[in-house]
Order: sequence, then C-alpha cells, then structure tokens
Amino acid sequence: MTRRSEFDLIAALFAPLSDEAHGLNLKDDAARIRPDPGHDLIVTTDALVAGVHFFPDDSPADIARKALRVNLSDVAAKGAVPLFYLLALALPDSVDDGWLEAFAAGLAADREAYGVILIGGDTVATPGPLTLAVTAFGQVRQGMALHRGAAQRDDRIFVTGSIGDAALGLQVRRGGLDLLPAAARETLLRRYLLPDPRTTVGPRLVAIAHAAMDVSDGLVGDLGHICRASSLGAEILADLVPRSTAAHQALELDPAGLEAVLTGGDDYEILFTAPADRAPALAEIAAETGVRITEIGRMALGDRVTVWGPDRQPLHFEKTGHRHF
Amino acid sequence: MTRRSEFDLIAALFAPLSDEAHGLNLKDDAARIRPDPGHDLIVTTDALVAGVHFFPDDSPADIARKALRVNLSDVAAKGAVPLFYLLALALPDSVDDGWLEAFAAGLAADREAYGVILIGGDTVATPGPLTLAVTAFGQVRQGMALHRGAAQRDDRIFVTGSIGDAALGLQVRRGGLDLLPAAARETLLRRYLLPDPRTTVGPRLVAIAHAAMDVSDGLVGDLGHICRASSLGAEILADLVPRSTAAHQALELDPAGLEAVLTGGDDYEILFTAPADRAPALAEIAAETGVRITEIGRMALGDRVTVWGPDRQPLHFEKTGHRHF
Repeated sequence: MTRRSEFDLIAALFAPLSDEAHGLNLKDDAARIRPDPGHDLIVTTDALVAGVHFFPDDSPADIARKALRVNLSDVAAKGAVPLFYLLALALPDSVDDGWLEAFAAGLAADREAYGVILIGGDTVATPGPLTLAVTAFGQVRQGMALHRGAAQRDDRIFVTGSIGDAALGLQVRRGGLDLLPAAARETLLRRYLLPDPRTTVGPRLVAIAHAAMDVSDGLVGDLGHICRASSLGAEILADLVPRSTAAHQALELDPAGLEAVLTGGDDYEILFTAPADRAPALAEIAAETGVRITEIGRMALGDRVTVWGPDRQPLHFEKTGHRHF
Repeated sequence: MTRRSEFDLIAALFAPLSDEAHGLNLKDDAARIRPDPGHDLIVTTDALVAGVHFFPDDSPADIARKALRVNLSDVAAKGAVPLFYLLALALPDSVDDGWLEAFAAGLAADREAYGVILIGGDTVATPGPLTLAVTAFGQVRQGMALHRGAAQRDDRIFVTGSIGDAALGLQVRRGGLDLLPAAARETLLRRYLLPDPRTTVGPRLVAIAHAAMDVSDGLVGDLGHICRASSLGAEILADLVPRSTAAHQALELDPAGLEAVLTGGDDYEILFTAPADRAPALAEIAAETGVRITEIGRMALGDRVTVWGPDRQPLHFEKTGHRHF
C-alpha cells in the first residue's frame, strides 16, 4: 500500500511538469506531439543507473536534472530547440516520499530553465538500483539537423564552454584533488553533478556548423566519432582546449590530470566543425549567448585524432573515450 | 573488454532493425522523425524489469517482443499506426552474446510483423536486473487520436480479442492450472508471454470509437480509468466478456478464475466505447481484420464500474486492477 501511495504521489508531483496542450497528457497512456510546420523532430534517449552513472546518494534534484540535461545536450548538439521529454523510472524500495519530492523539484527547476515539458512516462518498481531513461524531443528546421558525419577537410574544430571540469569533478566526488582550494573543488564537483547543456548555442549553429555532436564520452574519443563518420582525421592542440579557472588550478597541482581533461567524459559541451571563415559568426553567437566558443584544431586527411601536446609532441592516451563500465 | 565487444555486437545486431531513411540513424546520438503531413505523432513509453514484469529466464526473443508489443498496443489504442521505436537497455553481466543475438532476432521478427523500425536507443551496464524501456511512435490524422476521456452516456462498451488469457497464462507460468490439457496451458502461456497488439484494429477505430485504451492492468480497472476520465459509470456483463476456448476450459475447472480473467492484467486488447449504431461498422472491421470485437456493456451515469455476474448479482473483487508491485 505504501507503494501505491507513492505512485499516486508521483502523479501529483509530476502533473505540474506537464501541460494540457499536448492533449493526451500524463493521465493517459500516450502523448500527442506535432512539430511546427517546416520542422523535423529530433529524439534522443539516455539511460542512467545508480552506482554506474551517478552516486546513489547524490541529491535527488541533481539526479533528475542530470538525467534530463544529458538528453537536452544531445538535442542541442543536433541544432534543435528542446521541447518535451518522457521519463521512465524504475524505483527501488528505498525511495521515499521526500526523495521523490526533491526529484520532482529538480525537474520543475529545469522546466523553468529550459522550457521543456514532461509529456509522459512510466514508473515501475525494481529490486535493483534506481534506473532512469529520459527521452527528449526538440525541433529543427526540416533537413537542417546537424550530425557527426558532415565534417569537411580543413574545417576548423570548435568546442563550447570548458572541457575537463566534469572529469576532474568526478575525482573530487571520489575524494581526490584534496589539495585544491575548496571553491575550485566545488566548481568542478558542480560541473560533474549538473551539466549545462548548450541549448542556446546549438540551434544557432544550424547553417554554420558542418559536423556536430555533444561531448559526453571525452573530447578525444568523441572527436574520433566525427572523424570516423566523416572519413577524415583531426588535429587539435592540447593547449587550445578551453579550461575553467578551476581546471587550470587542478592541472597546476597535477599536470597528469591533462589526460582526464582530454579523454574524461560528462562535459556536455558541443564539439563541432565549421569553415574557417565562419569564425566571426561564431564570435557573435558567443557574445550574444555568453557561452565561450573556442577553436581547438582542424580536420585533415587521415583517419585518426592527433593531439599535439605543449611541447609539440603528439600525446598518447591509454583510453580515448570514457565508458561507464 | 568483454563488455566493449558486447556493445559492438549490439551495434551490429541492432543495425538491421533500423534504416537509413531517418537520417541520423543508430550511429548518431539522436534520430530525426517527421509525421506525414496532416498527422500527429503519438508517443508512449513502458519500462520492464526482470523479475517484476517478466521472468529472468523467459526467452530473450519473448522478452524483446513483449517489451515492444506492449508499447505498440498503447499506440494502436490511440488509433495510431505504429512506425518507430527507441530502446533503452540496462544489461547485467549475466547477459551473453547468445542472449543478445536471440533478443535481436525477436525484434527482427517483429519488425517484419508490425513494420516498426528501431531509430535509436541507449545501452548501459547495470549491477541490477535487466531493465528495458521502449518508446514507441505512431501517427494518426491530426486531432483524431483516441483517448480515455471521450466516453458518452449510453455508449456501448467493446473489447477486442479475448480477455483473461494472460492472467491465466501467468498462473500456468507459475506452475498452476496443472489439470488443464497441455494444449490449453500452452495457449494461455503464449498469450501471457507474447501479447498480440491490435495494430490492425486500432487505426480503424478513429472516427468510430469515442473513448479507447488498451487493457494492460485488468479489464475492470482499466474500464474504471475510462469512467474517471469521462466522468461516467459503466455496467458490463461478466458473461459477455469474450474468452478463448482455453480460458473457458480453465474456468470450467475452477470458476473462481473469473476474478483473474476480469481483473488480471497483460491482455493488451483494445477497450473502447462507441454509439450503439456503430455496431455494423465494427462488425465489418472485425470481419476484415480477423480480430473479434465484442460488446460487453454500456456507459451510464455514475462514477464506478458495475460487473453483473452470471446470476445477475453484482460481482465484487478484491482488486480492480493489477499492479506489478
């Protein structure tokens, strides 16, 4: 009976995350969606498991928002404006009313932040760890969605925001980087716990960028995906890869952290290529959105990613992309 | 490294379930979809957990197909033609290559059977039980999607196929109904393991049915959902509820099984209401699709479901809808 009341609670908590405009809404088994005329829908799904993709004792609001935001990041990297999401939740017995209230409050905050509406989902019980799957929808002008395979030779390679904060933040979450000032530790930790999907930049890259994707599995590995999909190679300069002040501080303490910065995951920045002459347009987008956009290298003939280190020697990494298992 | 090769295997196994027409396809992080002009997309998601929604030792092909079909059932009950699906998979270590091959083969069979195309998904590792979330898409003429809340007073209540087989099949799966002939046991078991979503009937109910939903949590409980959403009551006659020959045999052995038939879950038939004068149109649909459509009662003033028993007394049930927890 506790279980049943919890599921009633979810219905009560989740209703304000929805709206009546999508017809069938949360009280029905399905939602109705329609892109604006002349637009395609972009859809993506990501699953997250407690103990694998987040720590079971992370705050419920952070868990909720991270699950949502990693999907918004995918949508934005396609050049699409995020609109809706579905939420499938498998809940262990240990989840109580307070946890669910905090979880829903996190989603409510992100409804405000990103204007995305919950249009449906499913909630089930599990004897295993808390598991979530978010499916997010956005829209983009017909045929204009960005993808990985459109890079061209001599394209410049750009990335939004800063790279490596989340990988270093994960070290903080695990008790590492303890010599770092508390403020820097907190900055990195927040970047790990709560990605900042570039939803204002992504849609503006349509008709400017060639290839694009979001950096979720590590910069070098994800750039490798663009190379494979585009049948090209890439060269980037490690020194050009944008870092936050906190990441700079961490690398001063331990220069070996550079590998984590370049190959760690969870950045949720947009990695894209564009012709060199689009740099002024990109500078304008950066100025108007307040999101840094940095050129880090160029596409070239070949089939691999070369990372030039500070001493102009190619760097080699044990892994080139992070996997959660 | 075993893990990585498995995920490569999944990519290989799942590619034939997709197509190139949806642009971004399985090699990218998102899919692009567009309803036909003049149509709405219908989207639904259902999560299934091993040990909760299916038995961990059920055949991988059956698990895959059930996860897909329960979603196709939702789509069909909205009057929509199923088109696409996404698959989020959380896999425990115990899953091996053979299991995955059989799982993908099940989905390939249903691609043939229902013409639905895999357009994306996510695969992650879990320390817990196998967990799947399928998100299915269909399309229906704009504004014509069926829903629960449109029943009208004096509407007749109809249901497709037969009711109760899956609930009895679950008893068989658990070792019960052992006095039943083997053929009947097998029929009921298959109906539990593998729903038969009414994708040919659902789209034809548009402009005929008022309210509609699929029967997943038990006939009486789901009819209660239609009542609440439509602010009406309902009266049905237990004797009219269509049963398979196998279910008849089971009820002869144990008449108490009637409660399981009427309130058990996993039927995945379409329950709908329509004006009495649409009976001839429904008979034509039944004849053309080969799916039985049976009138079982009518909508009335009130706020509850009354089930009249064989002796013309109202039946009372311990539960009116089945929950998986």
